[in-house]
Amino acid sequence: MLILMRLGATEEQIQEVCDAIKARGFDPLLLPGEDRRAVGVPAALSNDQKVDLEGVISRLPGVSKITQTSSPFKLASIEYHPNPTVIPVKDVEIGTDEFVVFGGPCSVESYEQFSTAAKMVKEAGSKVLRGGAFKPRTSPYSFQGLQEEGLRIIQQVGKETGLATISEVMAADMVETVAEYVDILQIGARSMQNFPLLIEAGKSGKPVFLKRGPAATIDEFLLASEYLLNQGNENVILCERGVLPIDRTYVRNTLDLNSVPVLKELTHLPVIVDPSHGVGVARYVPAMAKAAMFAGADGVMIEMHPDPREALSDGSQALDPATFSQLLGEFKQLAPIAGKRF
Amino acid sequence: MLILMRLGATEEQIQEVCDAIKARGFDPLLLPGEDRRAVGVPAALSNDQKVDLEGVISRLPGVSKITQTSSPFKLASIEYHPNPTVIPVKDVEIGTDEFVVFGGPCSVESYEQFSTAAKMVKEAGSKVLRGGAFKPRTSPYSFQGLQEEGLRIIQQVGKETGLATISEVMAADMVETVAEYVDILQIGARSMQNFPLLIEAGKSGKPVFLKRGPAATIDEFLLASEYLLNQGNENVILCERGVLPIDRTYVRNTLDLNSVPVLKELTHLPVIVDPSHGVGVARYVPAMAKAAMFAGADGVMIEMHPDPREALSDGSQALDPATFSQLLGEFKQLAPIAGKRF
Amino acid sequence: MLILMRLGATEEQIQEVCDAIKARGFDPLLLPGEDRRAVGVPAALSNDQKVDLEGVISRLPGVSKITQTSSPFKLASIEYHPNPTVIPVKDVEIGTDEFVVFGGPCSVESYEQFSTAAKMVKEAGSKVLRGGAFKPRTSPYSFQGLQEEGLRIIQQVGKETGLATISEVMAADMVETVAEYVDILQIGARSMQNFPLLIEAGKSGKPVFLKRGPAATIDEFLLASEYLLNQGNENVILCERGVLPIDRTYVRNTLDLNSVPVLKELTHLPVIVDPSHGVGVARYVPAMAKAAMFAGADGVMIEMHPDPREALSDGSQALDPATFSQLLGEFKQLAPIAGKRF
Amino acid sequence: MLILMRLGATEEQIQEVCDAIKARGFDPLLLPGEDRRAVGVPAALSNDQKVDLEGVISRLPGVSKITQTSSPFKLASIEYHPNPTVIPVKDVEIGTDEFVVFGGPCSVESYEQFSTAAKMVKEAGSKVLRGGAFKPRTSPYSFQGLQEEGLRIIQQVGKETGLATISEVMAADMVETVAEYVDILQIGARSMQNFPLLIEAGKSGKPVFLKRGPAATIDEFLLASEYLLNQGNENVILCERGVLPIDRTYVRNTLDLNSVPVLKELTHLPVIVDPSHGVGVARYVPAMAKAAMFAGADGVMIEMHPDPREALSDGSQALDPATFSQLLGEFKQLAPIAGKRF
Repeated sequence: MLILMRLGATEEQIQEVCDAIKARGFDPLLLPGEDRRAVGVPAALSNDQKVDLEGVISRLPGVSKITQTSSPFKLASIEYHPNPTVIPVKDVEIGTDEFVVFGGPCSVESYEQFSTAAKMVKEAGSKVLRGGAFKPRTSPYSFQGLQEEGLRIIQQVGKETGLATISEVMAADMVETVAEYVDILQIGARSMQNFPLLIEAGKSGKPVFLKRGPAATIDEFLLASEYLLNQGNENVILCERGVLPIDRTYVRNTLDLNSVPVLKELTHLPVIVDPSHGVGVARYVPAMAKAAMFAGADGVMIEMHPDPREALSDGSQALDPATFSQLLGEFKQLAPIAGKRF
Repeated sequence: MLILMRLGATEEQIQEVCDAIKARGFDPLLLPGEDRRAVGVPAALSNDQKVDLEGVISRLPGVSKITQTSSPFKLASIEYHPNPTVIPVKDVEIGTDEFVVFGGPCSVESYEQFSTAAKMVKEAGSKVLRGGAFKPRTSPYSFQGLQEEGLRIIQQVGKETGLATISEVMAADMVETVAEYVDILQIGARSMQNFPLLIEAGKSGKPVFLKRGPAATIDEFLLASEYLLNQGNENVILCERGVLPIDRTYVRNTLDLNSVPVLKELTHLPVIVDPSHGVGVARYVPAMAKAAMFAGADGVMIEMHPDPREALSDGSQALDPATFSQLLGEFKQLAPIAGKRF
Repeated sequence: MLILMRLGATEEQIQEVCDAIKARGFDPLLLPGEDRRAVGVPAALSNDQKVDLEGVISRLPGVSKITQTSSPFKLASIEYHPNPTVIPVKDVEIGTDEFVVFGGPCSVESYEQFSTAAKMVKEAGSKVLRGGAFKPRTSPYSFQGLQEEGLRIIQQVGKETGLATISEVMAADMVETVAEYVDILQIGARSMQNFPLLIEAGKSGKPVFLKRGPAATIDEFLLASEYLLNQGNENVILCERGVLPIDRTYVRNTLDLNSVPVLKELTHLPVIVDPSHGVGVARYVPAMAKAAMFAGADGVMIEMHPDPREALSDGSQALDPATFSQLLGEFKQLAPIAGKRF
Repeated sequence: MLILMRLGATEEQIQEVCDAIKARGFDPLLLPGEDRRAVGVPAALSNDQKVDLEGVISRLPGVSKITQTSSPFKLASIEYHPNPTVIPVKDVEIGTDEFVVFGGPCSVESYEQFSTAAKMVKEAGSKVLRGGAFKPRTSPYSFQGLQEEGLRIIQQVGKETGLATISEVMAADMVETVAEYVDILQIGARSMQNFPLLIEAGKSGKPVFLKRGPAATIDEFLLASEYLLNQGNENVILCERGVLPIDRTYVRNTLDLNSVPVLKELTHLPVIVDPSHGVGVARYVPAMAKAAMFAGADGVMIEMHPDPREALSDGSQALDPATFSQLLGEFKQLAPIAGKRF
């Protein structure tokens, strides 16, 4: 932490800052400056440190600006854990040089619909099957999913196809239930800072697929993953799915592909991109999915519906089977050039 | 819903759009146009309508753009409920011409701290006492609140002072517990779209104080309140607490005071402004609190700590007792000119 | 400037950073740290410093993060110029305890329209008359203003009413022309970083009214003013006019009133708020104008049209004469409580 | 244009809306609705239409919401001009299946530096040479470019290497000068809505490279291009260079690759991506450049400096020669799979 004093701050003011730092058990370090002084706190704040030192110092007279110098996340940081995390789920490993495609419909609508979709995504080359059972919907009047009935369908279809399965869990008290039925717990963008949910999902030990909130900074995203890791669960997969757009006229979100190389440099966790939500319009999804591969993602999550025109939710962003299959064919061609296997 | 066709869309394409609309039980209305045609769906989609008509139509060839014409929220809308909602809590009514000040510390830290704070806010003119027991914190290493012990302190201090009390609930399975101890359930900005929590809080029948998410549109905010209202709970209070800022160099959020007159025109629910989170810096809070009164808010929520330099959380945004008291004195002077009582 | 090294940075990497700093004429200062080291550059970079030191250092191996510690603006800073700047224009001084209202139509449409508007705004209590002659319009097909004919009308009406006048200049080569006709040069939000224009306006010596760009940070805004001040022109007025909104469904911009107390603490320049553009909807303007007064603004700029339904531009945000007059009446009542004269 | 009336709007209010539409020469069309009525204006507003009909209607009592149904841009629209625009410059055509790389340093610093850079970018496979002579800089204290001396160097090096050249023009009165020295005029992101500059650049007939402003919507971007096209200049190249980021901790902008397929569907103009500014950090540039190719861009603009550590501006985002050359090598491998030549 570095505390910059205002121009003309008095010796008494600087002394008061130093005293406040010492009173909380740290060593202040006085830094010279031509036109203004600064005070450093060289010690890294340890993980169990609860003192709101910034809150205290920021109110002292003569203080101009405080800069945090130590990284706020530790367990997620590549500095503390230099090797990439690899997460095995059924037949697939996430986080290796294999490009992993998560495919399937937005919502599980019926056994027939989901089973049909599963066969198609498997045939095309996906190894993870997605399907929503509990759906977070902006309006209470929209289709809310088949709920536990949906989970049973996912489990059954997962067994029949051998695909790994993923579905969203929306509340801490549902983690145990969802964890019984699926292989990977998804935490949605709106739940990225649902801390009780993060803690329970962390405790479950199950692989967790954490989506970035649409207005979350990179640090906030990694601190959310830190809640999971801090419970001893190392099986955390990050997902970029689009941020708040400048305008919503033509797309639903702005897919932030910049975040992929940034995350790969900061953390050892695998990074998956969801272009379906990140754009929100089916006909733009293939371009952005291929862009994601070259941005450095470990895989993508793509919505596909056997008949998108009949989808009960998010029909406008799901690929039809032929387009999905063609896209995965292109992945096969592109993967070696991107340094990946598919 | 209005569907604009692309320039040069064929008769067949227009027919296909009309057929899709009819197949889902609606009447299409063909609109002429000089250079392009449009199709209207005049019926208001009813509340129990689950068809994703927009998803269906958006994929049809020749379709350029779809515009929703009916308001997505009903129960929250002033069009369906023209009289302002008034919510009585203990001695105070929220939503009348009385300007209501919610005051108190960010976190309950001890009986002594909270009791001292409560006496000060009451003495200054607050009628609602705030205090966090379960704290949503960006980092797992920050102080997480006294939890249920904090709730017991709030309940006791509420009884001793006669103040109405409010505290945050972060998960659906905690609603019952928190509701036993406090008068108003707060749903924080990060939980605005925690739908299981909204449903449980709705069912509780308790007054609910719903904070706008930092990237939520007005429609998303009102649809979140619709989840509460839809459970038969009419005691909903809206809170503007700042949106994603252009830059974070000098403030934590951008307090969106524009939203106050907009919300007052769209909904019958009371609107409270939280300038403490909306700015995040104590010395800017009084100016923004007064601005909020003239923007048309029904009240404000202000953080105050008996000794902000010793606060365990958010010390940088809490007012000290003297500043808090002076601000409420200014409210007394200003209220009559703003058409309010205080 | 503070350079934080990565965890595990080698002695050689730290040495390379120090060498690069020395090679550009500065003294590096090595700071200890428990888990990582940092290097400080205590000297304030002087104003004529052209070295891109950050660019150089950021590429060196082992460097984690660079923090600027000195304020990038000097002439605009209150630290270097503690007394508020007061700008006299005709009968009014901007930047004192007098609350100054800039009023008038979006565009000058004819002598009759502008003259009528001018009498109304003067009668209501405005001291500065606004009117657009050269109009920046998003579409080339919208009304572009009466151009020089408009300026002649402004000058004539200014003389007849005795009001100070302000109009926008959009290009460096038009500064001289516009400066002949009006008392204050307005630089619009879209031109905030039109640097050749800023330099010419600075050279003119005329009072300049600089609007904040809709996505500009506070530092970028003050650096734009620095371009004006750096030409020896001390007559700079800042204007907050709304930033990029979270959604555009109900408003055109988000009026960032937080910026008012922030700017008043950072700079000695007067700060005016434009709620007309900041909201973009006439019926929300009065609430936000009063909010601006209590946020600490030195005045407001309000659009008024004698008959808004016939306005050639921005008719949806102009107040009608009765509402304008009533609002200024309220300012009279409120000013003393806000510590202002009106 | 579609005007939605409020719930319970009276017959008189609907009549008043219809009358206002008729009074301005259009035909209103009354639309039925179950719970509310709407009025349509079927005629496309013609390009020379100056009436602010939306401003007029939006103020009438009983009006709830106005939706524009016709596309605001015409000349840029693919609907009116279905074939892709191809722009020949020296030996290269922009807008064909050839992937075009614009390469070179941020600023021209000397003949030696620029000449060295030019040979390197040509050798690597670039066909367009970029270099800033007049530099828009946030701070007046930063290096402002070599100005006209820089243009002379660009012209000379362009002749020596045979590369097409591009450099930024910042003001209308400089268009003629810059156009004498370079092959393509660049209009920077901060100047996207500098309308006098757009008009002059349009009149020049020269190819114009128009960068999207960091907070510009797609419609605003295309309307800016409309200013150029409207002067009879069909040689317009669009450039996506990053939008306002959620946070600036690790990148300077958010490269909005979603905009590429959206623009390709809306307009016939070529679309180039600038990942150097779009990320702002050299080591993330190659990943985003390849992502841009697969997003569907017609080319990229990449900053390269012979020795980035000595760059006078933006050194942190320029590639070094080896990395630049390697990236273009990868383009050669990738282009056929992306359906491009390189």
